[in-house]
Formats: sequence, structure tokens, C-alpha cells
Amino acid sequence: MSIRLVDCLATTPPLAEVFADRSVIEAMLRFENALARAEANLGVIPAPAADVIAAAAASPDDFDAAQIATAATASGTIAIGVVERLTTLVRERDAQSAGYVHWGATSQDATDTAMVLLLARVRTILQADHERLLAALRSLSDRHAATVMTGRTLLQPSTPVTFGLKVAGWHAACARGWRRVGTAFDEALVLQFGGASGTLAALGDRGPDVASALGRELELPVPAAPWHAHRDRLAALLGALGVYTASLGKVATDVMLLMQAEVGEAAESGGGSSSMPQKRNPAGCAVALAAATRVPGLVAAFLSGMLQQHERGVGGGHAEMPTIAALVQATGAALSAVARVAEELQIDPARVRANIDATRGTMLAERAVVLLAPLLGREAAQTLVARAAADAVAQGSTLREALAATRPLTDRRPPVDLTSLDDPDAYLGAAEHFRTQLLADS
Amino acid sequence: MSIRLVDCLATTPPLAEVFADRSVIEAMLRFENALARAEANLGVIPAPAADVIAAAAASPDDFDAAQIATAATASGTIAIGVVERLTTLVRERDAQSAGYVHWGATSQDATDTAMVLLLARVRTILQADHERLLAALRSLSDRHAATVMTGRTLLQPSTPVTFGLKVAGWHAACARGWRRVGTAFDEALVLQFGGASGTLAALGDRGPDVASALGRELELPVPAAPWHAHRDRLAALLGALGVYTASLGKVATDVMLLMQAEVGEAAESGGGSSSMPQKRNPAGCAVALAAATRVPGLVAAFLSGMLQQHERGVGGGHAEMPTIAALVQATGAALSAVARVAEELQIDPARVRANIDATRGTMLAERAVVLLAPLLGREAAQTLVARAAADAVAQGSTLREALAATRPLTDRRPPVDLTSLDDPDAYLGAAEHFRTQLLADS
Amino acid sequence: MSIRLVDCLATTPPLAEVFADRSVIEAMLRFENALARAEANLGVIPAPAADVIAAAAASPDDFDAAQIATAATASGTIAIGVVERLTTLVRERDAQSAGYVHWGATSQDATDTAMVLLLARVRTILQADHERLLAALRSLSDRHAATVMTGRTLLQPSTPVTFGLKVAGWHAACARGWRRVGTAFDEALVLQFGGASGTLAALGDRGPDVASALGRELELPVPAAPWHAHRDRLAALLGALGVYTASLGKVATDVMLLMQAEVGEAAESGGGSSSMPQKRNPAGCAVALAAATRVPGLVAAFLSGMLQQHERGVGGGHAEMPTIAALVQATGAALSAVARVAEELQIDPARVRANIDATRGTMLAERAVVLLAPLLGREAAQTLVARAAADAVAQGSTLREALAATRPLTDRRPPVDLTSLDDPDAYLGAAEHFRTQLLADS
Amino acid sequence: MSIRLVDCLATTPPLAEVFADRSVIEAMLRFENALARAEANLGVIPAPAADVIAAAAASPDDFDAAQIATAATASGTIAIGVVERLTTLVRERDAQSAGYVHWGATSQDATDTAMVLLLARVRTILQADHERLLAALRSLSDRHAATVMTGRTLLQPSTPVTFGLKVAGWHAACARGWRRVGTAFDEALVLQFGGASGTLAALGDRGPDVASALGRELELPVPAAPWHAHRDRLAALLGALGVYTASLGKVATDVMLLMQAEVGEAAESGGGSSSMPQKRNPAGCAVALAAATRVPGLVAAFLSGMLQQHERGVGGGHAEMPTIAALVQATGAALSAVARVAEELQIDPARVRANIDATRGTMLAERAVVLLAPLLGREAAQTLVARAAADAVAQGSTLREALAATRPLTDRRPPVDLTSLDDPDAYLGAAEHFRTQLLADS
Repeated sequence: MSIRLVDCLATTPPLAEVFADRSVIEAMLRFENALARAEANLGVIPAPAADVIAAAAASPDDFDAAQIATAATASGTIAIGVVERLTTLVRERDAQSAGYVHWGATSQDATDTAMVLLLARVRTILQADHERLLAALRSLSDRHAATVMTGRTLLQPSTPVTFGLKVAGWHAACARGWRRVGTAFDEALVLQFGGASGTLAALGDRGPDVASALGRELELPVPAAPWHAHRDRLAALLGALGVYTASLGKVATDVMLLMQAEVGEAAESGGGSSSMPQKRNPAGCAVALAAATRVPGLVAAFLSGMLQQHERGVGGGHAEMPTIAALVQATGAALSAVARVAEELQIDPARVRANIDATRGTMLAERAVVLLAPLLGREAAQTLVARAAADAVAQGSTLREALAATRPLTDRRPPVDLTSLDDPDAYLGAAEHFRTQLLADS
Repeated sequence: MSIRLVDCLATTPPLAEVFADRSVIEAMLRFENALARAEANLGVIPAPAADVIAAAAASPDDFDAAQIATAATASGTIAIGVVERLTTLVRERDAQSAGYVHWGATSQDATDTAMVLLLARVRTILQADHERLLAALRSLSDRHAATVMTGRTLLQPSTPVTFGLKVAGWHAACARGWRRVGTAFDEALVLQFGGASGTLAALGDRGPDVASALGRELELPVPAAPWHAHRDRLAALLGALGVYTASLGKVATDVMLLMQAEVGEAAESGGGSSSMPQKRNPAGCAVALAAATRVPGLVAAFLSGMLQQHERGVGGGHAEMPTIAALVQATGAALSAVARVAEELQIDPARVRANIDATRGTMLAERAVVLLAPLLGREAAQTLVARAAADAVAQGSTLREALAATRPLTDRRPPVDLTSLDDPDAYLGAAEHFRTQLLADS
Repeated sequence: MSIRLVDCLATTPPLAEVFADRSVIEAMLRFENALARAEANLGVIPAPAADVIAAAAASPDDFDAAQIATAATASGTIAIGVVERLTTLVRERDAQSAGYVHWGATSQDATDTAMVLLLARVRTILQADHERLLAALRSLSDRHAATVMTGRTLLQPSTPVTFGLKVAGWHAACARGWRRVGTAFDEALVLQFGGASGTLAALGDRGPDVASALGRELELPVPAAPWHAHRDRLAALLGALGVYTASLGKVATDVMLLMQAEVGEAAESGGGSSSMPQKRNPAGCAVALAAATRVPGLVAAFLSGMLQQHERGVGGGHAEMPTIAALVQATGAALSAVARVAEELQIDPARVRANIDATRGTMLAERAVVLLAPLLGREAAQTLVARAAADAVAQGSTLREALAATRPLTDRRPPVDLTSLDDPDAYLGAAEHFRTQLLADS
Repeated sequence: MSIRLVDCLATTPPLAEVFADRSVIEAMLRFENALARAEANLGVIPAPAADVIAAAAASPDDFDAAQIATAATASGTIAIGVVERLTTLVRERDAQSAGYVHWGATSQDATDTAMVLLLARVRTILQADHERLLAALRSLSDRHAATVMTGRTLLQPSTPVTFGLKVAGWHAACARGWRRVGTAFDEALVLQFGGASGTLAALGDRGPDVASALGRELELPVPAAPWHAHRDRLAALLGALGVYTASLGKVATDVMLLMQAEVGEAAESGGGSSSMPQKRNPAGCAVALAAATRVPGLVAAFLSGMLQQHERGVGGGHAEMPTIAALVQATGAALSAVARVAEELQIDPARVRANIDATRGTMLAERAVVLLAPLLGREAAQTLVARAAADAVAQGSTLREALAATRPLTDRRPPVDLTSLDDPDAYLGAAEHFRTQLLADS
């Protein structure tokens, strides 16, 4: 397996596979092979050379990652080692063809395009989990459209919401987040091919033609020009992934809080403990929150590396690969964990209701003010309700009871109907309207 | 003036004005005024109340920022102080109307919508500078379409480029960056209006109608639902500004390097020194690079604050205002500085050429290999050219001279034509093609 | 007042005062005045010139901050404007003396030393709040040495702790944090004086003497050499403040969670709400957590700016002032807020106990295993306890009751004494030992 | 080899080895083994059990990292998998002893202490490279104590410095940085041992004794109390490494700039290019700058994760391992690269001098002002020198020649001696004084 213990909560098996040595080498060989084929088709290099290169490039296992890594320390790029090894393998087959390996390309053409090819695989993996996530959230929201829940602001009870609305908010944030990620992938998954200084000078006037053919081979769009020192497309992608991961982290935050024993309204299915069967650890939330903790700094690291000098810089570009790999794997780990949490989340309606009841109606203090303001004036109404709420808390009565016992209301004829203050289900405003709009906006 | 000395390189006068106390209060009052008007039009509150509120909200100078700030420390929001003061001012005019101030809204509705209104002003300011920047870069690129310049990779001479191509690369990166910023502004500049828990319950079933009317009053789109604890739209905006600022920083990096006395190819017009008239400090680059240094951490700070609990969180949201203000001002300072640099940049063609000449033709080593590979085989060609280049450096001759003196070529009949190795202007590949494509892609 | 609304939760009045324009100008004038005096005492400049400079530097109100800020945009430093204005004011008094203003110094000598002088004031302010904090935490811990509380891991009940131990953990972390901050202040609060390139060449062979005298005037140690492009001392200070702020944020995290209505074990005294008297918002926690959210990115921003070129760089140094000001004010805001929280925190012992009781003894499952392992073997004991805990949860009994009803125990003669499983107060291990050690380690 | 291609520039072989799976497992087994031994010595568990545990823990190869990683996804910790496997291996040897594995400990005790053991190995590796670095820099500084070099501020020529002084500045910054790292290692390398909630309750009153014995077994100091949710010691270590890495990056920045072909004053020995023999790529600088680019965000990520809830949190702690591993490896990669650069750096004295000469004496404009101020008044002197420097640049003469030709000086009797303006070597102020002080301060 390709997961290392120190990173094991920070990735998923398929994503770890994408960034494993074999996969990286394979992507680079795919570039070299496609380049040779494109050039052969255009008559830039001899057709037989392309065949030999294709043959040699077909066996990533003939490449020793350790050797390539060691060579990279001296040159600053893993492309040198890959190209040298490929050249040797070609030469072993046909000396003449060896001269046409990597023809007209520069190291960064290979590493950048390889990274793009890897990211295309990442996209597919994430896309599937994202769809699982959205489906699970939509279903959860629909099932709980009428589950009235304590609204909580600053972690204190506010007015009521529905759990369905809360989940729809998660759904919409994740949907928006992924839309941005999609746009950014569309923009970032383009060919890199520029030669030594980004002019493709070694190809004379055939540069753009080769680029087009190469793009077709790799099924990658060809951008207006090479982008060796302009990393904004990748940065925009990482930024979008950063925002998306933070929205996943928001979901995990809410679930983790609902799972507290003292709240007990929701639970991840997994994460049990053998010695404490009542205990369900929010293990999925932990993975998602770990990612959300790390990703902002990784986004910053990438942005900081964008000040790349002239046609190709020193350091900024060399910093990218570990940052990209860490960030997309963190996003994928969070996504996979939250999708599972969403699929398996268990709600305890009795606890949900009990927590509302425990507020003794004070969650509807706002409603009481709205009700009484026309009769007493708003400020008098506010003072009255505040006092009644304090009394309710002190005496263990409900807000309605405490309010009914206050002088301005006991005296009132006809008596004010306060029954709605016992009914949080009737103080939901546009909750369902917003819920359906949020689900529609996806 | 609104600029503080500690921040004076980190903003511009118009942007500092946007985030000055008076402007912030004005934006909040605009929200309160529009809310009252929308509600009066729908019969939610009495029409005269809206008039009195409008009158009281018309004088931001009646609000004491210091008092509001002090109150905010206790409550965690500046809205409380603004609403209280507004209520007092309304009450002074008409006691009855005082009850209708801020009707149905929550503090964050006011602060978030006010921030959106401020950001709309920011957008206009940045837009103007961005257009100046693009115009200046386009013109600069066109003027230098044929200015052949040393290509530099890892800060060492590579093959030649044109300065026009380099500038077109800056242009395209900034254009892409601003497109993303524009998309993000479109998405982020929306109304916030949700009441205590985001259900608008205090407005009964009139919540969505009031929201629509309020959006019209403020000329802000109304999103699918309130977004109190979902900050992804703002995050996406800050992320886009972060990428854009980094691209501005890339321009400044290149200019700063070209301005070095030992390179001397370009110069900012300003930044002179009285004691050293030969000295032109890259003061504009310094401002841009300072912004590019700070912005990644600010993006990270915002992303880290997105894990906001439940319907409204503790801390994450409270962290946003200074981060947003600092980040957009930094971007604006960088943009303004780079726009001026681009408008006034002076190129010294003689130094540009002298720096090419100083490489003694070794910049065309790649061309020599391409030329000789068909005759000698590529690897033999590489070895020969490498030796010749070393000789050129050692003997003070040019690569062509050194190469012409090597045995395989002196003997050759007919002699190989090496004159192209003296002509960097003829080894530009697709430079002009890419330049025009980059400028078209904007 | 010097606080701006956009920053009002991110500072405190005395810290805002330190970074206000007048204070910044004053600090720079203190440098210029001390420099003249030191040089006059050593005969480097005429004594009367120092007197005239001292007189002109005595009135910071004669300096127009707006003008200085505008000048800084062109030059990249506020020192130019201050020195020019000072020179004018000196010239108005005595033309001859004007030539001796800022003698031998460079702009950064003035701005860096001024920043050091400001940071020395910051240190005093923070120190006082830190001492308040430690005193409050120590007292709180002592008062609650025996308050047994639910231990919580992954936000689920674990084995019991004492609230006194929890607070002692906060105390020790803050104490360690401040020790590091103190060490970093000691190292960072040193004179900057190096002249144009850090050699004090304009002073001939008198440079070090002037530096020593200047250090004495300002009561600042003189480091081994100027540090124009070496910012590690400041970085270490900001890093230490970052760690300290995070420890403050940890305290706020715990308090915020204990304050949840469903937990209700602790409450900030302040942060009430007029309409919801039962509601106590964690407003102090919000301020502290806002700071803890922003500070990591600010630390990163400073570290990123440290790659300053040669004797003085472009951009990195220009980025520092707003970052330093923002970071130390954020730390101070968090510290002030947490100190107040600690001083006024109210504990509800009944809720603390009720939350323990609500776990029905399952918090002592580990104890049950320890108790039964010698009799049954550890794995059998674990299985038995797990089943019993599940039964307790399902049947609404306690762990002890459920366990007593299991076959291996009902049959046992003599019966196993399970009474300790009803007594969380007796399962505290080394809690008090650790508590006293933590408080001693300060 | 343990280096992955995506990370290969971001670590060194020995550091990659430290964080490889086998090494991580080994460290955890060392904890479990020492725990059993300590407990057996104190009679807490049977002595034979400790022997069996020691035997089973002796073969890390019996542990399947992939299985442990998979298990960690469900539980959030790699300790579960390791302990379960160890228990199985013990049971295979002796069923009775299996119950005593991990006795009294919690998962985080194992993972934190294992991380501390790994970091102790990291310290040794870094220490050796740091000493190489300091030795190389000291020698380089001594050799170039008299190598006069262009001082550069804002990348423009300022007054002269010596290369020896510049290197001494690097030396002192790295020495200070490492001193802080050393202090932080001393503080961070302590035992973690607290049991479920940090009270060691499962050990009754033997907790502190076992902790002491365990510390002795592992040669780790025992802190005042467990630190499960207090991560400040590790944070301080990472912060110190961040500052140190930035100082390494500062060295790389200067070297990279001195290596530019147009400057040509210094060169890394390595990083050659086969096709361009004149080209020496700053490959070592690239590695160091890549690290310096990434590390600030990693520091921020760790600080952000410090808000860990109660006795053990959700997410923050789970984020640490990859961040720690990435950060210390980045530091080590930078250190190793800069040490090599320092050892092999080649200086070209002819280019150093030629660059000074190319400024035509304008670097001594400040000296000219100091010289003429007593004769003409400072402001008149400044004006005169400024005009002369402009003339020198325009006419291709030197500053001295241009100045000598100005009216106030041509007329002067006796003529002013301007010869010192041709002598940058005599305008070095306290350069050598500072150099020796900087080297002494280490």
C-alpha cells in the first residue's frame, strides 16, 4: 500500500495511490510517449523513434524511484532522472532513437503535465465521493424537514430551526464549493509545453503544431501559452479546494457538537470504543477537522511560492509538489470521511426534543416580544419578556407560565393568547422555504 | 485621512476611506434604512416609522465610533452599538417608531450586508486600477514585441525570449486573476438577511418577501438562504484576491530583478534617492511584494475561521472583519503600485542587448545541438557543444567561434553554416505567437 | 480614540494607543533625539545641534501623519517624511543644526528602533494582563481542586478529572507561553543602528561608540551588529506570541464548550442578552478565539517575509509593520478577554455533578475492568464490562447495577465489591498531584 | 528507500528514514516495552508479562503498516492497531501476559511519546548538519574578511560591505536560530503519559511512580503533568524551526542573487547543465528556498490545530503528525542544502571588484557628503554630490572626477582632497568590528 503511517489520516487509499512513485513515473512516461508520438506524426522526429520510445516507456517498473529521487537533489527536478533512464532504455533498443527522447521539451514540461494528469485522476476520485456526499445530505435533509431543533448561536440556544434546514445549508455550501472546484479543475487541467524558455524554440516554427498534437494525445486542452512561471491556475484550484475543505469542516464541526454526550442529538455510526459502549467517537469528524486544520496553511504555502522569477524561478516551483499532494489528499480524506458521516448519521429525535424542552420556552422569547410589542410597545414588551424569562429560569416554570403571571397580562381583558409560546414548531419562519431553495441551488 | 502610519504601505487612500469608521457606519445605516423602507412598503411596519428611521439614519456623524467600539467588546459585534444609537435617535424624533428599528433582523444581518456594500465599493476601485494595469501592460508588450531579451531560468541565462512575451505573460496572468476575482465578487456580493437563527421567524411568513424587497433597495441579489455560518462565498473572494495579488507580486519580482544595477534592463520611474542619483529604488515593487508577502497568511486566517459552529459561531466570524479589510487593502495597494510601475516602466535596450552579448552565444547552445544532432548524432552533438561552450567561456570567444574551431567541424566539407549561432533574434520559436495569444486571452 | 471599528475586537484601547500615529511618531523622534544627544556627547556633532534637535523633536504634534504616509508611498518608508519634517523644524530654529539631523543613520535604523520602543511598551501592557490571568487561574484552580468533573476526550465522556486540574493545565500552558514570550522580548528589544549598509561607515571609526551611547540613551541593549536584513529576533517574538495566543484560545475553547446550555457547567459573567436572560454569550471567548484564528496566518506572513535580500530587501521588510501591529494587538485582545473570563468565571457545581450522573457510571468502565481483570482475565473483563455498560444505557440503570446483574458476578462468592463504581470522586488517580505540580511550574 | 518522489526535494535520506513506517512502529514499540518494564519493576504488572511483551515488541517487522493504517481510519489513531497487534503477538506467546499490554496507558501516550523519540533522532541529525554549516560559514567569513563587495539595499548598490561581514551575518542568524531550536527541543522532548483523561487513574496511586520509571527507561524527562491537549511545547519547537529555516532561506536568497550571470560574484559548485557549461544552477538554493516557502504555512497549520478541546480534542491533534513530519524534514532539507552550498561556495573576486567599479564611485556618494558637509554645509553638499553623481553616470566618468569638475571645488584653495572617493576599501566603517562580534556571538 502507498499510505505511510504518519500520513494515514491525511489521505485515502486511492489518492495515496495517485501520488505513489509508480503512478508519478507512469504519468511522466505518458507525457514522454505522447510527445514522441505527436512529433513523429508531424514528421518532427522519425516515426520509428516514437515506436521505440513508446516501447521503453511502457514499463514504469524499469525505473528506480530511489535513483531518480537522488538525482533530483542535484538537479532540482525528478524529470532529469526519468529522462535519463528512458534514454538509456531506448538506447538499449535502438541507439539512433535515443537522441529523440524528450525532443524540444524541458524538464518542467514533463513534471507539470504529469502533475496535471495526476490531478485529472484526483478529480475523478473526488467527484464520486462528492456525489455520494450530496446524495446523502439531500436525503438526510428531506427526512428531517420537520425535525425541529434548537437553533444555536454563539453555542447558546437561539430560536428554533429544523435539522433539515441545517443539513440543507451544509448541502448548498458543499455544492457551491464543488462548483468552484470544478471550474478551477477545468481551468487548471491544461498542457504544459514550452521548452527551455517557454518559446519552443528548439522546434523552430513547429512548436504550436506539436503542442496541439500533444494536447490531443493526452486529451488536455492547450492553453494560450506555456505557464512555467505563472502558477495562478493551480493556485486557484488549491484555493477552491481549500474553501471546499473548510465547508466540509463546518459540517464536521456541527456533527461533532451534536454528538457530545450532553447534547446527544446525532451520532456517527462508527467510532465505538470497546470499554465504553455508550461512547461513539466522532472519528470521521476528526479526520475532516484535521484536514480543515491543515489545509489553510497549505494554501498559504502555495500562494507564497507563486513569486517565481522570470521564465522559471528558484524555490517557489520546487516547493509545489509536496504542497499539492498534501492538500488534495487532505481534501479527499475529509470528503470521504464526511460522506460516510452523512450517509450513516443517526439522529435521536427524543434528545432533540428534550433539549428544546430544557430551554423552558425561552427560545421563543423573541416571539413573545413580537406578540406583545403591538400591545405594550416594543421596549416595554422586551423588558417584560426579559423579566419573565429570568423568572422561568429561576422558578423552573416555562416562559409562557412566567409571562402569564406578570401583572400587565394577568389584568388584561380579553386575556392575551400565549399558547403559541409553547409551540416551537410554529416559530420556524421561512425554514422550509429556505431548505428547499438551498437544495434546489445545487 | 484614514490611513494609519503602521498601515500606510498596505493600502491606498480610497481603500482606507472605504474601511474608515464613517464609511462602516454609513453602510450599516444604509442597511437599517433599507430594511425599514422594505418593511414599510410591505406593510410589515408602519410607513411613518420608516420615514423617521430614514431621517435618523441619514447622519452618520451622529454616531460615535469610539462608543460603538467599546460596546462591541462586551457584545462581540458593532451592530449592537449602531442599532442602539439609531434607536435613541429615532426615539428622540418619535418614541413609537423606535420599536421598529432593526425589525426582524439580527446583528450579523447588518454587519454582513454592510461588509458586502463596502466590498462593492472596493470592487469599483480595484476595477479601475486593474483596467489601467492591463492597458499599460498591453501597450508595453506591443512596444517590446521585438525586444529580444535573455531568457532566465533559475536566475541563469536560458534561451532568448522577447520582453513583449514576458509582459504578455504578466498581462494574461493578471487578466485571468481578475476574471476569477470578478466571478467571486458576483457570487459574494449578496444580501445577508436571516434574523436570529436564519429563519426570519420574527417576520412570520413575510420573511422572503421582506428579503426580496430589501435586496431591491440595496441593489443586492438575494441568495437561496441566509449564510450566517457559511462563509464560503467570502472565502472564495479572498482566495481569488490572493491569487491575483500573487500574480501582481510575480510582476514586481521580475521588475525588481531587471532593475538591479548589474542587470539594468528596466527601471521604475520613481523611487529616486537624493544622495545617489544613479539609484532608482523599486519602491512600487516593494509595496506590491509586501502585499504578496502578507496576503497568503491572511487567506489562511480566513479559511481557518470558516469552521463556524451551528447557526452562528464563536470566534471564527469575529475574526473576519480585520482580515477582510487587511486583505483587500493589501491587494489594492499592490495593484495600484504595479499599475504605476507598468505605466512608467523604462526599458534600456542597450543593456538588454549587452546582457545577451555577455553570454557569448552560449544561450544558443541548445540551437547548436539541434543543428548538429542530424550530422553527429544527438549525444555526440551535446558533448561537442558542451566542450565548445566551456572553451568559449575560458577563452573569451563566442560559442560559434569555439565550435568552429573543433575538429569534427573544421574538417567538414562543405563546412557547416554556424552563423545562426550569432543571432539570438532568430531563435525565438513561437514567442510572438504566444505573445499575441496571451494578449487575446483577456 | 485610536481603535477603528473594523479592528475593534482585535485590540485593546492601550494597545491601539501604542500603534496610533502620534505614538509611532513619538517613538521615531525619541530615536532621532537620542541619536543627536549620543553623537553630541561623543563630539561627533556639535552640542548645540543636539539641543536644537531635542527641542524640535519634543512636539510630535508638529508632524502631520497624513503627509508622512503619503511620502512613504513613494519612498517605501515613513522615516523619510519624519526626518524631513524634523529637519525643517530644526532649520526653522537654526539652519546650521539642520545638517546634523539623523546623522549617520539610515531610515530603517529609525523605524526598527521605533518599533522596538513600541514593543517595549506592549510588553509592559501584556505583562500586567498576564499576571492578572495567572492569579485568576491559580485561584480558580485552588477553589476547584475537589470539583470532580466529566473528563472529555474527543468531546465524549472519558474518566473523571477535577476542574482544578483542568484550570491548572491552562495555567501552566499560559505560564510556559509567557516565559517563552519573555525570553523572546529580551532578545528582540535591542537597538538597530547600522547606517546605509550596516557598517556605520558615515561615522568613520566612531560607529560602535555612537551605537553604545545611543543604546544607553534609549535603555536598549546593543546587539553584536545591526540586523537590517536579519529578522529572526522579531520572528521568534511573534512565534512565541503565536503559541501563547493559541494557549489562550485553548482556554476559550474549553470555556465556550462548558458554557453550552446543554452542558451548563461554567459561564462568563458578561455577554448577556436583553431578550434572552437565560442566555450568556461567550463574548470574551469569542474575542480570544478570533485572535487565535487570525494569529497563525500572521505568524506565517512574518516568516514568509524573512527572505530579505542582501543588506536590506524589497518587500519582506515593507510587510512587517502591519503584521507586527496586528499580531501583538490580537494577542493583547485575547489576553485581556481571557483574563476577564478567568476572573469572573462562574461554575455551576450542580450541573457539573448532574452531567457526571447522566453517564450512569459508564465513565468508570475503565475502573471496572481494572477491578475485574485479576478475577476474570483482562479480555473477559473487558467483554463483560462492555456488555454491562450497553445494558445500563439500554435499561436506564447504572453500570454498577448492570454489572452486578451479570452471571459471572451474581454467582460469585464472596460477592465482588462494586461500590467503588458509583464513586467517580474516588477514581481521580494523580489529578491533585498533577494539579499542584502544574501550579508550581510557573 | 523511504523517500517518495513527490517529496524528494523536501527531505533528506536520514530524515525520511526517521518517519518511515518501520521507524514509527519501532518507536511505539519502544514505548510499550519500556512501559511494561517500568510497571514490572514497580510490581504493577507481573515481571514475566514484561518479558513476554519485550520479546513480542522486539520485531517491528511483525507489524503490518498497511493494516495499522487502515485501522487508524476508523479509530483516529495508529496506536490502536499497534497495540492490538502487539497484544496478539504476546498472546501467542503467553495468554496471561496479553492482558498487561499498554497497561494504564492511552493511545496518545504511545503516539506522542513515539513522536518525541523520533524528534530526538531528528535533533541529532540536524545538529550534525548545523555544525557543518557554522564551520563552513565561519571559514568562509574569515577567508573573505577583506573582500570588499557592493552593499545592496533594495537590490541597488549602497555603500560597500565585505563579503566576510555578509557571511558573518548569516552565521550569527543561523547560530541564534539553532540556539532557539535547542532550547525548544530541550523543552519538547519529554514523556507523555497520562492514561485516559490525564490522571493515570487506572494505576491508582502508582501513576507518578510509573511515569518516573518510564521516563528513566526512555531517557526522557517527565513533565509536571501529561500534556494531551496542551501542545505548546511542540508548537514552540516548530516555530523555532520555522525561524531557523527562514534564516537558511535568507542565505539561499543572497547566494542565488550573487550567482546571477549578470552579477557572477558567487557560485554553488554543483548544479551544472550538460548543454550549457557556463550555467551553474543554484540547485541547493532551490531546495532551501522551497523549504522556506513551505514552512511558514506548516507553522500556521500547527498553531491552528492547538485549540484542542478539553482533555483531548477532535481534529487538531489528528492534524499534527503530517505537519510535524513535513516541517522537520523541510528544515533538514534546507539545512543540508545550505551547509553544502556554504562548504563549496566559490567566490569570483574579479567580478566582485568589477561590479564595484561599474558603479563609478557613486557608492561613495554618502562619503562625499560627509567629506564636504563641513566645508559647504550638509544640504549644499548633498545637492552638489547629487549633481556630480548624475554627471558621472551621464558622462561615464567617476563620481570623484565629476565632483572635482564642479565649480565650488575647482575654485577651492587649497584644493579638497577627493582621493578617498576612489577607495571603497577605505569606507567600511565598523564592518570588521561587526564581523568579529557576529562570529563571537555563536
